[in-house]
Amino acid sequence: METGRLEAFSDGVLAIIITIMVLELKVPHGRTDTDALSELWPVFLSYVLSFVYIGIYWNNHHHLLQATPRVTGMIMWANLHLLFWLSIVPFATGWMGVNHFAPVPTAVYGVVLLLAAVAYWLLQRAIIAEHGGKSLVAAAAGRDLKGKLSPLLYLAAIPLSFVSVWAAGGIYVVVALMWLVPDRRIERVLTKPDDA
Amino acid sequence: METGRLEAFSDGVLAIIITIMVLELKVPHGRTDTDALSELWPVFLSYVLSFVYIGIYWNNHHHLLQATPRVTGMIMWANLHLLFWLSIVPFATGWMGVNHFAPVPTAVYGVVLLLAAVAYWLLQRAIIAEHGGKSLVAAAAGRDLKGKLSPLLYLAAIPLSFVSVWAAGGIYVVVALMWLVPDRRIERVLTKPDDA
Amino acid sequence: METGRLEAFSDGVLAIIITIMVLELKVPHGRTDTDALSELWPVFLSYVLSFVYIGIYWNNHHHLLQATPRVTGMIMWANLHLLFWLSIVPFATGWMGVNHFAPVPTAVYGVVLLLAAVAYWLLQRAIIAEHGGKSLVAAAAGRDLKGKLSPLLYLAAIPLSFVSVWAAGGIYVVVALMWLVPDRRIERVLTKPDDA
Amino acid sequence: METGRLEAFSDGVLAIIITIMVLELKVPHGRTDTDALSELWPVFLSYVLSFVYIGIYWNNHHHLLQATPRVTGMIMWANLHLLFWLSIVPFATGWMGVNHFAPVPTAVYGVVLLLAAVAYWLLQRAIIAEHGGKSLVAAAAGRDLKGKLSPLLYLAAIPLSFVSVWAAGGIYVVVALMWLVPDRRIERVLTKPDDA
Repeated sequence: METGRLEAFSDGVLAIIITIMVLELKVPHGRTDTDALSELWPVFLSYVLSFVYIGIYWNNHHHLLQATPRVTGMIMWANLHLLFWLSIVPFATGWMGVNHFAPVPTAVYGVVLLLAAVAYWLLQRAIIAEHGGKSLVAAAAGRDLKGKLSPLLYLAAIPLSFVSVWAAGGIYVVVALMWLVPDRRIERVLTKPDDA
Repeated sequence: METGRLEAFSDGVLAIIITIMVLELKVPHGRTDTDALSELWPVFLSYVLSFVYIGIYWNNHHHLLQATPRVTGMIMWANLHLLFWLSIVPFATGWMGVNHFAPVPTAVYGVVLLLAAVAYWLLQRAIIAEHGGKSLVAAAAGRDLKGKLSPLLYLAAIPLSFVSVWAAGGIYVVVALMWLVPDRRIERVLTKPDDA
Repeated sequence: METGRLEAFSDGVLAIIITIMVLELKVPHGRTDTDALSELWPVFLSYVLSFVYIGIYWNNHHHLLQATPRVTGMIMWANLHLLFWLSIVPFATGWMGVNHFAPVPTAVYGVVLLLAAVAYWLLQRAIIAEHGGKSLVAAAAGRDLKGKLSPLLYLAAIPLSFVSVWAAGGIYVVVALMWLVPDRRIERVLTKPDDA
Repeated sequence: METGRLEAFSDGVLAIIITIMVLELKVPHGRTDTDALSELWPVFLSYVLSFVYIGIYWNNHHHLLQATPRVTGMIMWANLHLLFWLSIVPFATGWMGVNHFAPVPTAVYGVVLLLAAVAYWLLQRAIIAEHGGKSLVAAAAGRDLKGKLSPLLYLAAIPLSFVSVWAAGGIYVVVALMWLVPDRRIERVLTKPDDA
């Protein structure tokens, strides 16, 4: 199978995930004051955070697949496995948002992010297994400090949710910002310069 | 019509089906304990199962259409017929999930899977009718033991739902696993080796 | 603008419309008997009908745009106007279905089909205005008996809904079947043979 | 990254946004009189308005990206930022519609339109920053009187909502019409002729 088809399908699923999340931002029926909006603040915040995360995954996913010449059955299922955990993000986002960042939902949000990160790593391994340790993907994965740091930060945030949801939420924001900051600048600090 | 357009539309519909299913995993409002999650377990399980099934259909559908040079009106409608039954999967999944695998919903789930399998078979026949018994599709369909076994297993699972939902559910899982296992390995056992 | 982009966007919208309709087939919570299914019968029937209609529009739309070399601003807005009325189809379908084909919803369903047909005709005119009366589209539109008959049948069905919803519903089914029947066969009867 | 991928993803998100909005047009359960329809009038009106706005953005977005040869990380995030505010349009539309154009929701609708316009302007700046002040995009942006007028009109409509929602709503309609009117005609009046 060509990479193009896998990308188009993944793009479709990611476009739907990113848009479906906004449905949890329920229209307040019969209320037209600004208070109705302020009560939606946590849902809005969690939507912003997850929108950024899905955007980051979309971006990284494309860089990854662009460096992948051939798609095998194993790669296809590793990709669907990643899409599966990302499809749970709207649920985790909504649960955290409507319950104003309560401990359990905040921890579960971290678990879903962690599982998505593991799925991404498995997808990378499946591609490297097919295309060899000297492939573009293998080289990029080796230097990928952000990819190695993120799961550790999620792992820290999950138990932290029960101590302070603000600390846990802060970690989720920091990881997102770490990816959001233009690659060139952060990469100059963290890794050897590259063209990724 | 070219195959590309049919594929793009089918990809779109399948991407939406796979993502819409997660909407039945309703965000628990006003509950933030782990019990709220455990109660969602059957819904989650049925979501996983159907996610895998839609993934399998997406995969098989593409292999089928890649071997199809031309699309006729008959093929187009056979394809829409398949998409129709797959679009009912989220309903059947949700019904089975929210009712904790009760007999009737579990049987109905099997009926929908069976009808989707029949629709897939009809699509194959429509392609063979157009492109001839010596086409790639005809050759692949002849060897397609998994495609012949699946409907029989669904047929067995439907009445079995009223005896033991676990047995019926087990059959759905086994069929999914049969397709999930990398083709090369299972095909070496079941059929003559091929390049599909 | 190239036709490809307009087609891809329209495909996306049509794929979502066709899939969103199924959401009105609400999962019966807390009911697991076959009665729960039978009560959904009218919703299911109306879904089947609209699924076929959207399928027909998707098919015709593509034939139309394939014969369109260039897209102008006017064509683009005529296309969005068509997508607008088709996006109302899920609402009309749901209203007719959940109320068991009551007169007003059944008439409104016809109104929406009529407006979509008018929008399709306007899109055709916009394309002919740009590409000339001797273009492929103009030639096909001239012979398009089904396209001329359908709005008249909707017009008849709308008032008929208040006399007999079965007669009105019957007309909707007949129009759908008229388009469903393989083109070649019906065209041999209705029009001069063509390659459309 | 190539422009094509960004366009395809944006098309997907815009197609979903435009279709998701119709979900706020809730099917009246258990009511089949024409009154049930008339009560939906404000929701329908607001849907029409937002459908046109998303259509305008889709159109302008494509003209913009067609003139963009290369996509950088900055352009990608500026694009996601635009999609973010557009994804809030269904919420703002629904809130304004179900509450019959009450002052606060009508003002919030203007705020979301304003933020989307700002995001569009930022996307333009990101493209110009990459491709230079002499690029096609820079030339088009310089002449873009409509793009400069729209945010000012939204800015006027927001406080006006608290004086007269009809005046504010009128401004939203006027801005939409300003973009809807075929470019060539209005551009002859407003700007020097161009090929955009």
